[in-house]
Amino acid sequence: MAKYMDVHHSMKGITEEQLREAHNADLAIEKDEQVHFEMAWADPESGRVYCLSDAPSAEAVQRIHERAGHKADEIHPVPLMVQ
Amino acid sequence: MAKYMDVHHSMKGITEEQLREAHNADLAIEKDEQVHFEMAWADPESGRVYCLSDAPSAEAVQRIHERAGHKADEIHPVPLMVQ
Repeated sequence: MAKYMDVHHSMKGITEEQLREAHNADLAIEKDEQVHFEMAWADPESGRVYCLSDAPSAEAVQRIHERAGHKADEIHPVPLMVQ
Repeated sequence: MAKYMDVHHSMKGITEEQLREAHNADLAIEKDEQVHFEMAWADPESGRVYCLSDAPSAEAVQRIHERAGHKADEIHPVPLMVQ
């Protein structure tokens, strides 16, 4: 398992409720791929959404996002983290 | 105060120690601009580094990053967050 940051580029105008619904759609099926979506942040103005996940691979992250109806535009492993 | 996600594109090969040093350089001066860098994630392979901060403006985030020696390539407000 590893951490991934994926980015959606085209979610302009997304509301808090839509972000919650999209995240819940991921959470509902994430176990099928041993993925866990931990947090997501959205900028309604630019349409960027960033999702932090714990997953076996980038492909597993994308399969969940695709099935939930929101394919990611970028997925990067982020093995390093500081706090 | 608002949340920001900034992205660095060109930190290929960054190590855990270098990420820690870069983050500490931000933390050392962030109070000058009422910014707080909460977390940072790095992908040494693509060179992407994502930083989550709490700040009065994107310009304040950039001023700290510039003074610390690592200007951000993108800075997006992220007013929406789910967990």
